[in-house]
Order: sequence, then C-alpha cells, then structure tokens
Amino acid sequence: MGVNSGTVAVLSKASVSKRKGPLAVASKDAAVVLQEVNKLAKAQQQSVKHRATLEELGISDAREVAVMDDADVAQTIERIVIQAAQSILAGTGFSYDVPSRASSNQLYVPQLERIVLKSAVSNRPFSSTATVRKTAITTRVLSLVHEVLNKRIHITKRDLFYTDVKLFEKQNDSDAVLDDVACMIGCTRTSLNVVASEKGVVIGRVTFRDDGDFIDCTKMGVGGKAIPSLIDRITDLQGDAQFVLLVEKDAAFMRLSEDRFYNQYPCIIITARGQPDVSTRLFLNMVKTRLNIPILGLVDSDPYGLKILSVYLSGSKNMSYDSASLTTSDIKWLGVRPSDLETYNIPKECRLDMTESDIKYGQDLLKEDFIKNNPAWMAELELMLKTKEKAEIQALSNFGFQYLTQTYLPLKLQQGDWI
Amino acid sequence: MGVNSGTVAVLSKASVSKRKGPLAVASKDAAVVLQEVNKLAKAQQQSVKHRATLEELGISDAREVAVMDDADVAQTIERIVIQAAQSILAGTGFSYDVPSRASSNQLYVPQLERIVLKSAVSNRPFSSTATVRKTAITTRVLSLVHEVLNKRIHITKRDLFYTDVKLFEKQNDSDAVLDDVACMIGCTRTSLNVVASEKGVVIGRVTFRDDGDFIDCTKMGVGGKAIPSLIDRITDLQGDAQFVLLVEKDAAFMRLSEDRFYNQYPCIIITARGQPDVSTRLFLNMVKTRLNIPILGLVDSDPYGLKILSVYLSGSKNMSYDSASLTTSDIKWLGVRPSDLETYNIPKECRLDMTESDIKYGQDLLKEDFIKNNPAWMAELELMLKTKEKAEIQALSNFGFQYLTQTYLPLKLQQGDWI
Repeated sequence: MGVNSGTVAVLSKASVSKRKGPLAVASKDAAVVLQEVNKLAKAQQQSVKHRATLEELGISDAREVAVMDDADVAQTIERIVIQAAQSILAGTGFSYDVPSRASSNQLYVPQLERIVLKSAVSNRPFSSTATVRKTAITTRVLSLVHEVLNKRIHITKRDLFYTDVKLFEKQNDSDAVLDDVACMIGCTRTSLNVVASEKGVVIGRVTFRDDGDFIDCTKMGVGGKAIPSLIDRITDLQGDAQFVLLVEKDAAFMRLSEDRFYNQYPCIIITARGQPDVSTRLFLNMVKTRLNIPILGLVDSDPYGLKILSVYLSGSKNMSYDSASLTTSDIKWLGVRPSDLETYNIPKECRLDMTESDIKYGQDLLKEDFIKNNPAWMAELELMLKTKEKAEIQALSNFGFQYLTQTYLPLKLQQGDWI
Repeated sequence: MGVNSGTVAVLSKASVSKRKGPLAVASKDAAVVLQEVNKLAKAQQQSVKHRATLEELGISDAREVAVMDDADVAQTIERIVIQAAQSILAGTGFSYDVPSRASSNQLYVPQLERIVLKSAVSNRPFSSTATVRKTAITTRVLSLVHEVLNKRIHITKRDLFYTDVKLFEKQNDSDAVLDDVACMIGCTRTSLNVVASEKGVVIGRVTFRDDGDFIDCTKMGVGGKAIPSLIDRITDLQGDAQFVLLVEKDAAFMRLSEDRFYNQYPCIIITARGQPDVSTRLFLNMVKTRLNIPILGLVDSDPYGLKILSVYLSGSKNMSYDSASLTTSDIKWLGVRPSDLETYNIPKECRLDMTESDIKYGQDLLKEDFIKNNPAWMAELELMLKTKEKAEIQALSNFGFQYLTQTYLPLKLQQGDWI
C-alpha cells in the first residue's frame, strides 16, 4: 500500500519515453519538402512511354475495352441483336462470339504494368445443349442493359440478378455474363451502367462536378467526399494538387484530413478503406488521367499492403479486359516499407510477427509480375520475408499521434523516399 | 438449328413479364403521399415521453454518460489524477473506482427503448496483484487522452494502442480500459476524442458544418457526403426534411440518390452500409435531436435487417453506458417486412430460404427486449420464422429497377405502412 516508485513513473510525463526517431527532420518550408515530388511529376509528365497503347507496343493480339457513352453501347447492343434476329430468320439459329476471359487468355504487359486480355474468342450457339442456357442469359442481359441505358439510370449487379431470378438462378451466372457482354460490346462494365457499391472517400486539392453538383474537396470538413459509384457522372475534375496520397486505411485518412495535410502540402488524399473497389480504382485512374501528377502509396508494411498497391496498379485477373480504365500505372510505394522499420527505428513491440499465412502470401507475391518487374519492390518484399516482421501505418503513432503528418510524410517527401 | 420460338420469346420485349405488383398506386402528389408521415411527426413531437430522463422515470440506480467538451474532460482527468497523487503522498497508495460494464450491471429500459448501465462500481487498487496491471493501463490511458484533448485532435483506438504496446500488449486491453475511462469520467467515448472509423454516408435535405465547412447534402451529387468520425466537429445541423430514411445497404442508397428521391419527398437518406458503426449512430441521433422528424427504416427482410434496426434503436451491450447518444428511439420499421412479401407479390424465386443459422438467429431475436416490447415487430418476426423465407431490398428490382423509388416507397409512405 506504500508509495511505489513505479506508480509515480506511470503518472509522470517523463514516462512518455522519447524514443529515437529518424535522424533527419523535414524542412518547415513546403516548397523545399516538395522539390522531389515536383521532379518526379516532371519526369512522369515528360516520359512518353506513359500509357503507351497496345498498338504502339506492337501487341496486336490483345483486346481492350473502352469507355463508351450510353447511346453507343445501346447501338452496339441493337446491332448484335439484329444480327442474331437475321440469323434466326435465315433459318440458321444464332450464336454469340464471346471473348474468352480464361487465365490462359490473359497477358501481363510489363510496359503497361497491367494485365490485358488476349484475342481468343469462343462461340456460344443457342442450338447446343452445352451453351443454350448461357446464350439465353446473354440475350436477357443484353436486353436488360439496353433498358437501363435507355432510362439513363445505373443499377448494381444484384439488381440485375433480381430482375430474372428464374433464368439466372445464381448471381454468379448473371455476373459472369455481364463481364462477357462488356467484352462483346468492347466497353467497360461501368459503360453498361452496372456499377459496384461505393466505399472510397476523397479529400484535398481537387474539385469536380458529381452529377452536376460542384464539389470542392478542400471544403469537405474532416469527413471527406464519398467517391460515387457512378463514376461517369463525375465531370470537370480539376485541382492544383501536386501529388496523390493513396492511403490504405481509414485511420490514416482521418489523421490526414483532421490535420488538413493538403493545406500545407497540396495533394489529394484517397482511400478505399482496405481492398480497393472498382469505383475508387476508376476515380484514381481519372485523377491520374486528368491531372497527371505522381501517386504515392501509403500502406501497411505487410503482404496485403503490397497487394492493395498491386490492385490499383495492375488490376485483378477477373476484370483484365477493362484494365486500361481500372488500373493506374506508375504508383510509387512511399511507405510503410519493410526497410522503414529500421530507418525510422520503429520499436520492436510495435512490429508484429508475420503469421504462417502472411509468409505464404508474401512468397506467392514474389512470383507475381508486378513484383518481378520492380527490383526495388522485390528487395523490400524479400526483406519482409527475411525479418518475418510486419507493421501497420498506425505503428508510427508510437512516436506521437501526429508523427505521421508532421514528420514521417514530410520527411519521406523531402527525401524523395519512394520506390 | 431452325427457328426456335423460345429464342424469339427471349429476344422479345414481351418476355419482361408483367407480374402483379401491389393493388394500389401511390399518388403523384408528394403532399398527399406525405400526409401520414406528417401525422407521425406531429404525434412524435407532441409526445412528452420522448427521450424521458432516467430521473423522470424514477430510475435512480442507473448511470449514463454525457457529451462533454475537451476542457471539461481534461479537467475531470486532472481531478482524478490529483486525487490519486494525494493518496500516494499520504502513503495510502491509490485506486480507481470504475463503473462495472458487466451484463449483470445492465438494464433495458422499455420507456427509453435502450439499455443503460446500473450503478455497480468496482474498485481497482494499484497495490493488488490482481489489478495492478489494469490500474497502470488506466493511468496511462488517462494521460494519453489528456494529451489528445490538449492538442485538440482525434485519434483511433488503434492509434492509442500503438503509443504503448509494451504496456497494453493487446488492443483489447486498451480498448476495454478506454470504455472504463469514459464511464469514470462520465462522458461519451467520443468526448475522449477517440473515434471509430467512418463508414456511413448521407444525402438529402440537410445542411451542416463539418469542421467549419458548409455542407449541403442536396448538392453532393450521387455519391453523397461521408459521415465524419469526428462527429463533434459537426455544427449547425439544419434542414427542411420531413423524415429520415435509414437504409441498410449501399445499393438502395445509390438508387435513391441517383433518382434524387429527396427532391420529391423531402427527406434525409442515411446508410451505414451494413452493420451500423458508431459514427453513423451518433449522426442519426444528432439528426433526430436537432430536427425531431420521424425515422423510417428500410432493411432486408431477414433477422440481420432487424438486428441492424435494433442497434440503431437500443444500442449494443458493450457501450450501453453511452446509449443516450448512440441510440435513437422511435425508429419505425417501414420495410422490407416479411408481410410485404405477400402484400407486394414478391415472386417466389426472388425470396430466399432462410438458412439454419438465420433461423437460429431469428429465434434468438424473439427473446430480445426490443422485439418483446413491440408486438407488431414480434408478429412480423414470427411470420418470417413460420414461412422460413427472407428477401433483400434488391428483390424489388424484379418489378423494375426504379420500382423502389417510384412505387414501393411512395406507396408505403402514403399508406403510413410502418410499424
């Protein structure tokens, strides 16, 4: 019951132990801090290789889809259906030519840093018992998409499924055919006005119109603006941001938005709150296309953080036909990188041991093209697998709650410390 | 290979079978449609029982916390710590009195439709081996919260954990103590400036300031405004909305926002995208407190839809000490209700069979206070468990993609069809 020196220590402010952070301190001058970012921006803007077309690369047997407007998609559907009707009237039944989305028909193009679809096409005749059901579903989906386009509305995949449960039976069946239809028409899935649900949020130095409403993302309080799933309703995207900060998690986003990080360092802060959804990926692509500024990724130092960057960068295999609008090349890995753990003296107790499945997942990543084609990323991943340690962005809170915004990021930017 | 009549049928528009919907059609006049809503609003506004205090109800042994500002919370922490220091200097060691958050100390108050904490308190002495660690953690959390309040910033629970991993060891340990500290101080967890991540989104006839920025939720495009996790940064909430539409899922939210449902029927549309998070619950409570308009819930017709309503309504057991600001009384269940499946002739193939675990979960709900105290809800849940059928909001798409906004909701409103 007596006085205990440990007790006093706990109460005393001195117990907030001042651990050693990084050696350097960032400049107070935002212009100095941003010099490296501006160099990167210039280099990227001058680089002609940027978003080369498949044609320029001499890849003739790959297929990509394009963003098309409602009327064009509707017209293409009409053309496909008239062809089928004529074929029926000629007494020859009908069939569709559907681009194959099998992995054997996919190709990673290192110059583009993404996967595209090769040219294999499979024929889907109505008169075959093997394909009759799929052909009927394809026809129904074409008809429903046509209706949606004419009404100028957007629906979700789930809505589509529920319009004809008897025919579709499982949502997987209508979903798969929806991707087929996008490939047949040669448009993005979003061009079919079938959209995914929204998850992302944006704040910072960017303005745009969302369905006509003017949105200024520097005036969105601390909560930010929800990124709409109807990405084609976004117009007039502008801004004086000098870079995009792509953040894995909501907690880091909150820190950045509360500290209004973008006021001092003109940037756009985007998060999909975990695994990137289609809308956030489309939005990032749109920002990059319109503003052409560097994109810097801030993710956890673990295999999933890296995977998240790769989805923004190279896309998922399932929608590789649409990789041009869904992926964004030239994303830099700013942090938290495995080497940061030592550089920034992150205390041992704030690092976590990788689990068996983390290690397995990391080893799988070693074999992926986006890692194999980037030696610096490869080296970081190998370091992670060697030390078997991971760390979250939040681990930086150990040096103080605002260490992320006041020290870590400015320093990273000033030193051009990205790969 | 010949012409197949089935083929033609699939292609023909006539195959979009016109199934029988509900018998009545809603009025084209929004004022007529909203008559029942206005009656409900008036009744709720006149009702004195609305948000009675525990004192008024004669419940003296229950404990609730209040929203407190940064300075008040900081002062209370200083008082607690000075007391401890004095006790140490007097040679008697120190201890904290911590309100018990065990279920045995929780009470459902039917008049309030929520759970509150009873008055049991446990003593946490530093000198006991059983409580020394928890007492040290409590002290550290008090000190960290004090720092955050002085800096006038907000952090997440995860940030808090990472500031002293050596002491906290597991995040559960710092999280639990954080709730203890809120109870000790008598303030909400949000008043400690420790917030949850944001998930919710809002659109419609409401304006407010988010950290000083003026936000007009009728001008948020189709994406809506992200509900900030820093709910205490929201001020000046106003609006001419006549009701709140509380939506379970993002897909329905998208339909409502794309169709700008709130233009025709002045309302505020809120979704937490599934299980309600703390920020969305606080926001709903704030809307209700400021505008005092009816709240109508639109959820899937399954036990989880009902559970979602109950979380908004009665809160979770874990944070019952804060139920006054986290819960919102008088939420009406608009739909999709089990009885709607017949009333609206939802085709059999759009209904889903309840799984074993759905049924088990539904049976558990039958025993919960919020159901037992509401015979109409009880009857619906019993009907669900009898038919063993569930349905999603999306099932309404079967009658057309805009059936939800153009027919179902107006009709429900006009008929005052909520319970």
